[in-house]
Amino acid sequence: MNIRYVGRQLGLLVLVLSAVMFLVGVWAWVQAAGGGAGERAARNALLLSVAVGLLLSGALRLAGGRFEGQLARREALLLVAASWLVGAALAALPFRLWAEFVGNTSAVDPAFSSSINCYFEAMSGFTTTGATVLTEIESIPRSLLLWRATTHWLGGLGIVVLFVAVLPMLGVGSKRVFRVESPGPTPEGVTPRIQETARILWMIYFGLTVAEIATLRLLGLDWFSSVCHTFATLATGGFSTLNASVGQMDRVAVDAAIIVFMLLAGVNFGLYYQLIHRRWRTVRDDPELRTYLAILAVGCLIVVISIYRLPITTTTGTEVPPSFFTSLRYGLFQVTAIQTTTGFCTAEFDHWPFVAKATLVILMFVGASSGSTGGGIKVIRCLIVAKVLFVEIERVFRPNVVRPVRIGKSAVEAEQKLAAVSYLLGIVVLFAVGTVLIKALETDHPVSLVTAATAAAATLNNIGPGLAEVSAVDNYAWFSAPGKVVMCLLMVIGRLEVFAIIVLFHPRFWRDE
Amino acid sequence: MNIRYVGRQLGLLVLVLSAVMFLVGVWAWVQAAGGGAGERAARNALLLSVAVGLLLSGALRLAGGRFEGQLARREALLLVAASWLVGAALAALPFRLWAEFVGNTSAVDPAFSSSINCYFEAMSGFTTTGATVLTEIESIPRSLLLWRATTHWLGGLGIVVLFVAVLPMLGVGSKRVFRVESPGPTPEGVTPRIQETARILWMIYFGLTVAEIATLRLLGLDWFSSVCHTFATLATGGFSTLNASVGQMDRVAVDAAIIVFMLLAGVNFGLYYQLIHRRWRTVRDDPELRTYLAILAVGCLIVVISIYRLPITTTTGTEVPPSFFTSLRYGLFQVTAIQTTTGFCTAEFDHWPFVAKATLVILMFVGASSGSTGGGIKVIRCLIVAKVLFVEIERVFRPNVVRPVRIGKSAVEAEQKLAAVSYLLGIVVLFAVGTVLIKALETDHPVSLVTAATAAAATLNNIGPGLAEVSAVDNYAWFSAPGKVVMCLLMVIGRLEVFAIIVLFHPRFWRDE
Repeated sequence: MNIRYVGRQLGLLVLVLSAVMFLVGVWAWVQAAGGGAGERAARNALLLSVAVGLLLSGALRLAGGRFEGQLARREALLLVAASWLVGAALAALPFRLWAEFVGNTSAVDPAFSSSINCYFEAMSGFTTTGATVLTEIESIPRSLLLWRATTHWLGGLGIVVLFVAVLPMLGVGSKRVFRVESPGPTPEGVTPRIQETARILWMIYFGLTVAEIATLRLLGLDWFSSVCHTFATLATGGFSTLNASVGQMDRVAVDAAIIVFMLLAGVNFGLYYQLIHRRWRTVRDDPELRTYLAILAVGCLIVVISIYRLPITTTTGTEVPPSFFTSLRYGLFQVTAIQTTTGFCTAEFDHWPFVAKATLVILMFVGASSGSTGGGIKVIRCLIVAKVLFVEIERVFRPNVVRPVRIGKSAVEAEQKLAAVSYLLGIVVLFAVGTVLIKALETDHPVSLVTAATAAAATLNNIGPGLAEVSAVDNYAWFSAPGKVVMCLLMVIGRLEVFAIIVLFHPRFWRDE
Repeated sequence: MNIRYVGRQLGLLVLVLSAVMFLVGVWAWVQAAGGGAGERAARNALLLSVAVGLLLSGALRLAGGRFEGQLARREALLLVAASWLVGAALAALPFRLWAEFVGNTSAVDPAFSSSINCYFEAMSGFTTTGATVLTEIESIPRSLLLWRATTHWLGGLGIVVLFVAVLPMLGVGSKRVFRVESPGPTPEGVTPRIQETARILWMIYFGLTVAEIATLRLLGLDWFSSVCHTFATLATGGFSTLNASVGQMDRVAVDAAIIVFMLLAGVNFGLYYQLIHRRWRTVRDDPELRTYLAILAVGCLIVVISIYRLPITTTTGTEVPPSFFTSLRYGLFQVTAIQTTTGFCTAEFDHWPFVAKATLVILMFVGASSGSTGGGIKVIRCLIVAKVLFVEIERVFRPNVVRPVRIGKSAVEAEQKLAAVSYLLGIVVLFAVGTVLIKALETDHPVSLVTAATAAAATLNNIGPGLAEVSAVDNYAWFSAPGKVVMCLLMVIGRLEVFAIIVLFHPRFWRDE
């Protein structure tokens, strides 16, 4: 294990992060010119954090070792884990410094005066979870809210590049889970070269970002809202700049636009590459895309029917009288927001009937497509596991009949079957452990099982809101510090698809063989 | 699929069941001679049920086809499923008829005046679950309580014979999961011939039964109590003849004796066969036995520490002042009763701290050893899955290192790994579906998530008591009929290790190929 080389690469990443933060700092400077003391404090906090970032980056690069051949698998995994853990610490700094600068004042949300809260918020940003410690979001300076949204955007981009370009090249994880099967002449993945793939993903992500900002601007949102909500949508994050999330805008057209872009963000980005190359049939026949849309459609059907004829309480507390259109509007939005793991809210779905809530919780675990910015178990894994279980049941009464499990045209190998089933079971175990820990750690303010379980599910699957005390209109500020540490771990474990963090605890990881 | 032959074999089973019921009926006759109207009604109910059983048996054997070669796998699975489903219906008949005969009277528990309640109780008996619909158990005639205990004893015997002798011979299920590995000259299993194995298991089970009855008699219990509690212990069932379960006796020596026999009932019965043949080393080195005892020890440690210095409420409602001895006594009993899936109670553990309750719920899922009368996932499967997950994590950073998963001296094959992991995942899915269904079906009396989840866990894993509204001092009578149907299904699915029931829903099961 070449830890010094990992440190050097981490330094590069911190440098990039500082550069992006600097851009937000420049905007903060412009804001502060006409703004109040809060905006000026935010500007200072951001620029001071940039300075800290540059120092840290320099220190890491100085202490780090030189490049020695190819980046090995263990070094890559350690780098990935360190990127999210250290990146969140740096991203949390502007929040914490700002709270220090403005001091105790009743005018602003006090959440950022606690360091663990700031780390939680930054980790929730980078992991595109969208669980927040803020209640009065609008009391926070706009430049900090932009930085908060930017953590989503960077996290979403990072995850797509990591899973579609970097990890498959290193042979980490089950290949088929992460790449779109192309029947053409490139069986190794979308493109054979890692940098080329990363560049194309960048462009697709950037293109979608421009498209959504333009759409929201056309619908009348200001630049700030358009940019922040776009960042949160495409990363399937869910941080809003409004206290009552997207529901506060109460605009049907905005809801519809965000539904469409959440849907697009939950698709494997490799498919957009296929679209650019006019491989329509590959996209049309993609088994994961079909299943993703089918699950979404069934989820919408169940939820819309179950809330039909019921009044809907929006996130602003307004009660909307029942109508078919209302059920459709709020049902579609919430189902899409949950399955894509974005976590935006327009309605307080904790008030919905049990069937609707159970459906939403199941969709939290299913999640979006592999190679998308979405979280959860991923549709392709659920599809493989469903087929494996079906075949396993037949094996009981016909043990000698060998039936291959097929996804699209290719058979799933034995190793991939075991990997997919083990992954699902691993998620279940982590969910159970997370629930027990959250419930056990909240001794001052005992929580219900529903709160603990959905807090664990919403952080592990990178959703954001859960049910009961972590519902659409609640937040995570009131949890104890140990509880928040557990949730930060769940977020990063879920985001990096379990293994990149869990491997660090494997006794053989640190041993050279 | 030769359904008529299955019918014929089922007729034989109904005949055996009727014969055992007749023996209980004879005892009821003796009881009724000196007893009241209730005992006479019970006698009549039992003898009338025997008549129905004989008629049913005759009809099935007349309608059934002749023997045609060897019993095929699908026929065997259908026979197993039908045995439990039809057997429970016949076993429920005495309860239902008795309630009909005594009519509406405030002197007795009214639960048996509902047919689904009677079926639930009988299914709970045969599956050795021990979940009861009775509140005033002592108001039920003793002959019916003996019959209730007898369903446990028969169910426990049936399951051991099925899993240690019958299914492995048919090649159903993963062989290694069900048999004790003998390094000697019989690699096919405990003994090569199915009838010989079944005979030996009978003898071991009978021997343990005699030993426990004798022990309880020596400790001063009357014949009736000794026999009924022995039947419930060795089958890891949990039906008591007392309203407040074993806790009502409040005898340390009785608690200790029952702990020992529960522990013995949770051991693979194949190991007793090895003991008889003086293969000490095989028993000592058995990986499942060691893990079973280790988990039990760790569970006891956690629970005893967590309830140390807390007063204990027994099942009779008495509060026992805190002491080290008290924590040890009630902790050991409850942990053993839950992990062996017996479900006897001496304390109201729903009052215990969260850590103790979480430990007990985890142990519900782990369960006892394979080839024992206990339920749950089984220790050997948990062991295989834990090792598989450990190796899968290492595969992330060292994909080219092949590390076999070993249980004892032999490597676990790829098929067995997938089977074990799939089984665990299947149980989790069934648990989730069961919880959602129970919660969704209880519309008149909405239940908490804890109640629904532990009711699902306690029936699926064949425990008996759960937490909250299905805790040690509660019962299952108040659930709606649809909820009880779901729980009956969970009990039989859990008891027959999922597949024997689930296969019936597989579209290819009924198709000849």
